[in-house]
Amino acid sequence: MMTGLPERIDEAANRIYSITRRTPLDFSPYFSKETGAKVHFKLESLQYTGSFKLRGVTNKLLAMSEVERAKGCVTASTGNHGAATAFAMKRLGVRGEILVPQGASQTKLESIRLQGCEPRVLGPEQGETERVARRYAAEKGMVYISPYNDVDVVAGQGTAGHEILEDLPEAHAVFVCVGGGGLIGGIGAWIKSQAPETKIIGCLPENSPVMKASIEAGRVVDLDCKPTLSDGSAGNMDHDTITFDLCRKVVDDWLLVSEAEIANAMRLYIQKEHMLLEGSAAVALAGFLKNAARWKNQDVVIVICGRNVDAATLKNIL
Amino acid sequence: MMTGLPERIDEAANRIYSITRRTPLDFSPYFSKETGAKVHFKLESLQYTGSFKLRGVTNKLLAMSEVERAKGCVTASTGNHGAATAFAMKRLGVRGEILVPQGASQTKLESIRLQGCEPRVLGPEQGETERVARRYAAEKGMVYISPYNDVDVVAGQGTAGHEILEDLPEAHAVFVCVGGGGLIGGIGAWIKSQAPETKIIGCLPENSPVMKASIEAGRVVDLDCKPTLSDGSAGNMDHDTITFDLCRKVVDDWLLVSEAEIANAMRLYIQKEHMLLEGSAAVALAGFLKNAARWKNQDVVIVICGRNVDAATLKNIL
Repeated sequence: MMTGLPERIDEAANRIYSITRRTPLDFSPYFSKETGAKVHFKLESLQYTGSFKLRGVTNKLLAMSEVERAKGCVTASTGNHGAATAFAMKRLGVRGEILVPQGASQTKLESIRLQGCEPRVLGPEQGETERVARRYAAEKGMVYISPYNDVDVVAGQGTAGHEILEDLPEAHAVFVCVGGGGLIGGIGAWIKSQAPETKIIGCLPENSPVMKASIEAGRVVDLDCKPTLSDGSAGNMDHDTITFDLCRKVVDDWLLVSEAEIANAMRLYIQKEHMLLEGSAAVALAGFLKNAARWKNQDVVIVICGRNVDAATLKNIL
Repeated sequence: MMTGLPERIDEAANRIYSITRRTPLDFSPYFSKETGAKVHFKLESLQYTGSFKLRGVTNKLLAMSEVERAKGCVTASTGNHGAATAFAMKRLGVRGEILVPQGASQTKLESIRLQGCEPRVLGPEQGETERVARRYAAEKGMVYISPYNDVDVVAGQGTAGHEILEDLPEAHAVFVCVGGGGLIGGIGAWIKSQAPETKIIGCLPENSPVMKASIEAGRVVDLDCKPTLSDGSAGNMDHDTITFDLCRKVVDDWLLVSEAEIANAMRLYIQKEHMLLEGSAAVALAGFLKNAARWKNQDVVIVICGRNVDAATLKNIL
């Protein structure tokens, strides 16, 4: 594990709550009855801006030196990371730029604008925009904020694991959707440092299983990914991402789920819990549901990592 | 106002949090930008069991004497009040019965069963079941818990107002859906006692405007109500309800909304906030939206009183 990561997570847990929310861990009578496990949902969906991403970016901004903060930060994202960065910059008074690809949907840009930040259009597509953003930051002496390939960001996401163990020290397993690996890496690093017997289960869509394929290959690989309901976790990773070694060490098991299983998990959660969740969150629930027999009478935590599903997708899966 | 109601609300706020949640008051960038007001949502939808009802019933159970608690309680409800009562009884170790009408839908009964309580079928329809439940309680020496016509229940609901003023002492107006009047009565009683200049706005569906019609008539009237998306607030009231005089005193304005306005408010909230709400909650938002011009640059609170919308209704309004 990265040296000092648990200490960094503890430090993050001592500072991010100035602008982030401690989220609830709610017992689910329905999913517990149906599966025989004791099912708890970690509601990252109730974080400000609707996903766990605010934890990492808040910690990153607070870890920057005064000199760095004066120069500002740069990121590239039209999704949850972009909205979270806009929110955190405004609350913490850090200036910066959010770069987005040409042709990004107005709906996605709106969630950044509503947080008081006007995105700047640069780069023909998301991957390219990230490279442009890194160059742009380097040229201007600004700090580039990766959504996952950054130790302060990962430490920030790890505060979700900190809260899980505070609320349920006896958790037997934690199910997390894996994209770039920042969330599961942070949660796993904390939990393995405090309760090493707790299993950390990584769940991915069959249509975009980049981290799992990379772990199997022993190096970060690029995949030709198919579209998935889990758009928040989809896509390839930096070849040098720090989350690769971290996931190798802290993730006990990997589960793949189909698009039908994701859609079913979304529908069931909405019908029974009466809350929204996005596709990536449903990946973790779907992973648990196909593996539930293993966890009878045990306490399992399913991380509902975000709620930002668009109305058309929602109508489709209901 | 009922003598001592603010004191009872303060007392409730000192005891209900053993089993109820303090709910967030979240600023809405979208609705603020669209209307020019500073819009805050009081998320009673995030209360355990998905509605504000748990506040009132928790306070009622905790206000009962040891002798009363030993004899147990009785209520009649297939809806949010029933699920909240089941939850509170189990957590507080109070035994009791939840009576439901014949033919109540299995979906509604499931939410009571999931809280660990088997409902007892009595009475041909909801109004009749309430009368049967009162008689049943009287015969057995048990305590009948009305969803709104009870000073301890109203005091419990008032804790939502207590939290609103703690979080936003400068609130200019609070919009609340009105059914039996327990929620707006409690919120209004607290707020008028602490910040009398804050306006309390009651919102009702055109299809079931019982309290507004009663206030206009100067007495509780029965109406032939039409079906409404706001099923949680629909129906006639006890003729002796304590909430009638209370609403006369604490409610500044009354707004009616159509079914189309309720559906539009639901759709817009789900699209923009990515959270669920039930029809009654949308009544308060719809009331604000048709009245928004009056509140430019002012802080308004809209109470999202519950989230328990069924999937078919949800699919329909999207």
